[in-house]
Formats: sequence, C-alpha cells, structure tokens
Amino acid sequence: MFVQPVPTLCRDGDSVLILDQTQLPWRQVQLRLNDLTAVAHAIRSMQVRGAPLIGGTAAYGVALAMAHGGTDDAALAHALNMLGATRPTAVNLHWALARMSARLHPLPPAQRSQAAWTEAAAICAEDATTCGSIGQHGLALLRALPTPAGRPLRLMTHCNAGWLATLGAGTALAPVYAAQAVGLEIEVVVSETRPRNQGLLTAWELREAGIPYQLIADNAAGLLIARGEIDIVITGADRIAANGDTANKVGTYLKALAAKAAGIPFHIAAPRSTLDLDCPNGDAIPIEDRGADEVCSIIGADASDAPMTLRLAPQQTRAFNPAFDVTRAGLIDSIITEHGVFTPQHLGRFYAGAPA
Amino acid sequence: MFVQPVPTLCRDGDSVLILDQTQLPWRQVQLRLNDLTAVAHAIRSMQVRGAPLIGGTAAYGVALAMAHGGTDDAALAHALNMLGATRPTAVNLHWALARMSARLHPLPPAQRSQAAWTEAAAICAEDATTCGSIGQHGLALLRALPTPAGRPLRLMTHCNAGWLATLGAGTALAPVYAAQAVGLEIEVVVSETRPRNQGLLTAWELREAGIPYQLIADNAAGLLIARGEIDIVITGADRIAANGDTANKVGTYLKALAAKAAGIPFHIAAPRSTLDLDCPNGDAIPIEDRGADEVCSIIGADASDAPMTLRLAPQQTRAFNPAFDVTRAGLIDSIITEHGVFTPQHLGRFYAGAPA
Repeated sequence: MFVQPVPTLCRDGDSVLILDQTQLPWRQVQLRLNDLTAVAHAIRSMQVRGAPLIGGTAAYGVALAMAHGGTDDAALAHALNMLGATRPTAVNLHWALARMSARLHPLPPAQRSQAAWTEAAAICAEDATTCGSIGQHGLALLRALPTPAGRPLRLMTHCNAGWLATLGAGTALAPVYAAQAVGLEIEVVVSETRPRNQGLLTAWELREAGIPYQLIADNAAGLLIARGEIDIVITGADRIAANGDTANKVGTYLKALAAKAAGIPFHIAAPRSTLDLDCPNGDAIPIEDRGADEVCSIIGADASDAPMTLRLAPQQTRAFNPAFDVTRAGLIDSIITEHGVFTPQHLGRFYAGAPA
Repeated sequence: MFVQPVPTLCRDGDSVLILDQTQLPWRQVQLRLNDLTAVAHAIRSMQVRGAPLIGGTAAYGVALAMAHGGTDDAALAHALNMLGATRPTAVNLHWALARMSARLHPLPPAQRSQAAWTEAAAICAEDATTCGSIGQHGLALLRALPTPAGRPLRLMTHCNAGWLATLGAGTALAPVYAAQAVGLEIEVVVSETRPRNQGLLTAWELREAGIPYQLIADNAAGLLIARGEIDIVITGADRIAANGDTANKVGTYLKALAAKAAGIPFHIAAPRSTLDLDCPNGDAIPIEDRGADEVCSIIGADASDAPMTLRLAPQQTRAFNPAFDVTRAGLIDSIITEHGVFTPQHLGRFYAGAPA
C-alpha cells in the first residue's frame, strides 16, 4: 500500500489539517482548517486541489460545519451550498457533497455531527483504496508497452494527478507508483501546466517519492511525442461525460491530439466518482474561467527560495483563461477506474445502473 | 508603408543600435553594438531574435567586423564562422551570411568594409519590403474568411513574428497591420510561448501599434480553436524544408493539430529566405536544445516594473527544452511569402531554380 510522503489531508480533533499547495514546491506548510468558511476558501484558492482531494476536503467541510455551525437542516443546506459553489468543473466535489447529504439528511440533527466525521473519513479511506486499484489496472497497461531501446519507459502527464491530488497514490500517477513498487523502471515527463504550474507540484511529489522525471514547457509535448520519445500519456480528469468525453486541466486536449497523431496510447485515470452520467457529452460540461490575473502573473521563488508572485504582463492586459478543456472520447484509448480499464464508449454503459 | 513604432535595428555611424528584446515589455532599452563579439552575443542571448531580424543583425555583424577587425580573408571567415554558430535553427541567419560572403569575397580587402555596410543595409531594406508584400498577400486570405457573428475576426498566433522580429511589419503579423491600414477589424489571440514568453513581446508590439489582443496560456489554444472562437492561425517560421515541412517556435505544431481538427486554416508566413532547399524535409532540420534553465525560470517584473528572473523549479531540476518543433506540410494550408500564397507542397518547386 502506497503511503503518502506527507499527508494531503487529515483530521486532527475537531479540525482538519491540509498541506497548503499554493506554497509548494517552495515551502511545506500545514494549514489548520477550523470551520466551513476556511474549507470553502481553501478549495476556491486552490490550497487544496485535484478532483479527488477536493471531494474529500469538501466532505470534511460538512463535518466542520456540523461540529461548529449547528446541525439542523438549514445549517446542512448552507454548508452544502457554500461548498458546492467553490469550483464548477470538478464533479467529485458534487459527488462527495451528495453522498454527505444522503447520509446526513435522514438522521436526527443530534446524530449528524458524529455521522459527518465518520462519512468524511470513509470517503477519504475509500479514495486511497480507489487509487491503489487504479494503480494496479494502469500497471498492466504499462507492462504491455514495448520496451524502449536505450532509455527507460517514459510516461507523459499533465497537471498534477498524483498523490498530492488525492488521499492515496493519485490517479494518473498511481500506475507509476505501482511500477516503482514492483521495480519497473519508468521516467515521467512533466508538463509545466501554465498558468498555475501544477506540473511543478508533480515534479515535487515525484522527487519526494523518488521517481525520476523531466520537466518540459507545455509547448514541447508535441515535438517529444512526434519524435518517439514518449511511450504513453496518462492524465487525470475533472469530469467524464456519459459518452466518455473528458474535461481535464486545459492543455490535455493538445496532448491527446499529439498522441493520436503519433499513434501512442492516451489514457485517462480517474475514480468512478468523476463520471457524470447526467452529462451526455463534453458540450454539457461547464468550463471554469479563472480570469486574466493567472495568465498575467506567475508564482515562483526568489534567490532565497521565498515564494513570490511576478507580473508577466502589464496591468489591464486582457486574457482568456479557461481552466479546463475537453478531450473527445475518440481521442482516448481507455479510461482507467478502480474497477478496470474501459473504452470511453463503454464506461458510461458499464456504470449506468450500477450504484454510485 | 508600415513604420515600426520603435526601430528594431539601425546603423549609427560605425556602430549599430538594437532594441534589447530581453528587457521588453518592461523597459525600452536601446543597445549600441560596436563589434563582432557584441553582435554574436546579442543574437545568442536573444537581445535580438526573430529569424529575419537575426539575418539583418548578422549582416551588420559582418560590417562591424570589417570596419573594426580587418578586411582580409581570415577576418571575413572568422566573422562568418562566429556569427554562423550563434543559433542553429533559423536559416535566415545562414542565408544572410552567405549573401554577405558572396558579395565580399570577390572584392579586394580595401573595398570590403564599405561594401559590407551597403549590403547589410540592402538586406534590411529588402526585408521591410518583403514584410509589406507578405502583409498584402495575407490580407487577401483574411478578407476571404467568413465574417464571424457578434465578435471581431480573430487570428491566433504563436511566439513573436511581428515587427519586432523583422526590419518591417513582421511576417505572421504583417497581414494584421495590413488589415489595420484598410480598416478591417481584427483581434489577435496571443499565445504566451513558454519558456521564453515571446508572446509578451507580441502583446507589447500590438499595444504599441494599436491592435486589440487577448493573451492566453499556451495550453488554452486547443479549447479556443475547438470552440469556434478562432478564425485563422498564422505563425512565422524559422526554417522551411523543400517539401514544406516547417520548423517554428516549439508549440506551433500543437496549434496546427488543433486547427486541422477544427477545420480552420493554418498558415505560415515567412520570407523566401526561410526556405532551405537543401533540407529535403522536417527530419533534416536541426532543433536547438536550450537547456533546463529556461524551463526552470521565468523573466517578469516585480511591483515596481523592474525586470527580474524568478525560479519556477528548484536547482538541479532536469528538463527537456527543445526550442522549435516541426509542423508537417500536411497540416499547413498555405505558406505566404513575399511572392504570393503557396501550398507547402508547391513552394519548393516554385523556388527551385529561381535565384535565392
């Protein structure tokens, strides 16, 4: 079983501790969240991020609301609404809140606080198990790849869908950690992922876990894939529509195009909770627009490794900043969940009717 | 005739003045280059950049060598070798040096200095004329596009192939300035172009010239094109092979893939001097690798608009950093030169046998 080098989220008495991801890779800061408002802020400001980790954090947000803000129906509805409004694209958030609601609503208010802590813990424990299963299914795909000559097997990923994005080993990177556990050599090519540079989180988490990697500018993905230097692309997902169309961090679609053009496999790895059967296809997935500021600035570190924000473009520069894009099912070789490896077309049919 | 808001390069007595592009968009600094070494440094460090401007600057580098370093065959060969070794991918550099060599070698040493100044000035004047012609040919393509509903015509570009990259109106952006001159409304979508962020140069030059634009992270190009928000993509080129395969700033290929997938036109705009008939196809184009530092750091400005470099990844982070990629002829709708609009397949045949 994969053990996170630093826990992304854990309960501590009547509060919750998170690793503040806006400080990484420069500073390893644990934040204590004491109430609903702090949790909503942590999700919105991306102190916690990654679809599965957002789900787990939101579940604990409900528990904190019940512990400190009252347990009647109005308090519960308020918590669910506030947390539901933090991020529009990741469906795991809504899945986790729906599960909390279904567990707590039937209970008398006096029992809700205890039940909320228990349910949030269960959601998080299940996520760790889910990551482990995704890792094993993905490992089978890695083992089936032809052995490259003169270099290790190379997996390209985008954004961060590793242990930092979950309560366990990650989604897209779970197969990498599973490979490490059985001694299969693998190098990860990490796309920077502008504008928020979550690729640097991936670089950090891989270093913490002892996996070799190479960082690239997002622009370099096409050339490296076309040159035959990459064997497989795996990314996470923020929402998968019923037909297999997948929303993930903006830039994923360009990698899928390049993989298809070069004939190398492109896979999505995500828990079942990322599948939104109410969404018929990618056109129905809302795409979060995060505004010009993120494009016009960047977070890095000065000579003393202190995080600071630098302006890249003058004030008042206009910018488009969609946070996600949609990769059509036809560009995806398979979607790896905790239950197996599915073609995108088959995924929705497999889960339709199965319990969520 | 387009007039550069600030001259990119001009002779001043026995020296040459350049606009230092490593200080933009924050500071407008003119640098005086007095000798061959200064010119070679300016090209290598990207104080001047853009294939046509590199060619013009290298030509003046030969003139400075003749003026200050002697005019015998050894001095000429030394200048040509030093300048030729500065950047490996842009072929205009080699084209300009070959032209200087052909002009100067037959002359007695005593006449070479004067002739070098004259030939360098001719190369630069011709580049301005070339840009004007590219603009007119490209304008015809813009006029032929369907009028979008509810927004201006939108052109996406990558890197900087505007007036800052040339001695005139630019290559990829020359049609935009031609459109402005005739009152055709157009908005430019500017891709940031990590790792060196030349898109911010494009944003700066468009603002100086009064053209509306929107900045995007490189990753956002796919979604915007797929959503129908872009009407045409035009980029410059650093080297075009005989079969039409084109090397340009890394990331160009991904935009070409997205344009093809969405069925919108993708064009290359470049002077004839970018065509390398000795290069049969894209596999024969050398791709410059600029090392990990550019990927692990970024240049921006602090709160007082002073340019500074920020680290994005810790020291010793490994990175791949190819500076260019290759877009195959099959993804390119046409190549616009000063002589017209060509299919990539026809371009080499048109120019084969014609004088270079």
